[in-house]
Amino acid sequence: MPSLSLDCVIFGFHENELKVLLLKMKNMDQWALPGGFIYRDEDIEDAATRVLSERTGLVDIFLQQFKVFGQPNRSEKKYHLNMMKKDGIKVGKDNWIIQRFITVGYYALVDFAVVTPKPDMNSVSCEWHEIHSISELFMDHKNILDHALETLRLQLNHQPIGYNLLPQKFTMPELQKLYETILDKKLDRRNFQRRMNSFGFVKRLKETRKGGAHKAPFLYSFDLRKYKKALQEGLQGGW
Amino acid sequence: MPSLSLDCVIFGFHENELKVLLLKMKNMDQWALPGGFIYRDEDIEDAATRVLSERTGLVDIFLQQFKVFGQPNRSEKKYHLNMMKKDGIKVGKDNWIIQRFITVGYYALVDFAVVTPKPDMNSVSCEWHEIHSISELFMDHKNILDHALETLRLQLNHQPIGYNLLPQKFTMPELQKLYETILDKKLDRRNFQRRMNSFGFVKRLKETRKGGAHKAPFLYSFDLRKYKKALQEGLQGGW
Repeated sequence: MPSLSLDCVIFGFHENELKVLLLKMKNMDQWALPGGFIYRDEDIEDAATRVLSERTGLVDIFLQQFKVFGQPNRSEKKYHLNMMKKDGIKVGKDNWIIQRFITVGYYALVDFAVVTPKPDMNSVSCEWHEIHSISELFMDHKNILDHALETLRLQLNHQPIGYNLLPQKFTMPELQKLYETILDKKLDRRNFQRRMNSFGFVKRLKETRKGGAHKAPFLYSFDLRKYKKALQEGLQGGW
Repeated sequence: MPSLSLDCVIFGFHENELKVLLLKMKNMDQWALPGGFIYRDEDIEDAATRVLSERTGLVDIFLQQFKVFGQPNRSEKKYHLNMMKKDGIKVGKDNWIIQRFITVGYYALVDFAVVTPKPDMNSVSCEWHEIHSISELFMDHKNILDHALETLRLQLNHQPIGYNLLPQKFTMPELQKLYETILDKKLDRRNFQRRMNSFGFVKRLKETRKGGAHKAPFLYSFDLRKYKKALQEGLQGGW
């Protein structure tokens, strides 16, 4: 499809940090969000699923469209022209690739442990970056990332965000850290635990997490049926 | 811009009914959502504002992008070909108008009383329709409307929906009816009133609404500063 692309903000959670999957583009200093074009007969949702599966090796991913970015000056004509020239491809001034593009932003939540990052044809590497370490990105990608984070924050009470970002078994401090990172604020440990337990969809297992310096903390897992039911109405209360 | 359009779901509230502004298209039995194309150098937000102002006569409207509709089979090639033929315009098979279009859905909230509906060049009339009376629309517009309603429901605690849909002065039963319509369920009168008062952004005026069969109810208005502050954190609790 002419004029239209998509960009994916792929979130993962690892060692108490929220991370985003970024591509280092060929002949460029900047990092970029994974993205792609839409085939002429392709559903836009299918295109997003395709890009995600190519970059992460996963097929069944939690994926949400969140915003269209349509400012006239957002396309990087110069970059595309340069890249084509370096690859020895001649591009006329009416070529579709250097026209204005409007992009659809998607965010995805993945289990960090099972992802195998893979660069695309325009990039040399594909790596996780901790969200606070990212100050600049290709084109308007930093703006797209910021909007994705804001969307996560707004959807905490309506989407199974914890379920999709955490491994199957997790500790209460890990869950709290995830909420604190998304909300960008400290939460009281006791209140958080009491509140989470009151929802009834987090169940404590008999196992504990061994190997830390402190007393081994209990492991928890989500009761997905109860989680989804609670999210339908929206979790009660703010954080 | 080729391949890309936008469609607007314009909500208004009148006589305790939630309504949507629809167009009756030329030579067609079906009604459609107001929509339009995006000029080559136009920000997509500006394009939506332009379409809204053309249809409603208003310039300062609450407007939110909510979803992209990108299924390959959603365009109505036949309709466009027919319309062109009736207008005596010849269209080649590569013409941009009969290609596949992806559309960006916007919803708008307006004060019913100040809108002057105006048809566009492809339509013969522009009228308000009560949302429950709408069973079928042009192309996938019914699907777009349903998604807009779902978005309203999810955003009740995060966007100034009451403020934008109600006149400056309203009664508590009117506010309750608006919430009931959007949530599609009955709410308890006392609980609703208690809850609304607890937020602190609805203030009771000294005036009453005169002329009804019952005891004249008090009028209320929003304290916009307090309303916006409360929405930033999200209103506490579900409905």
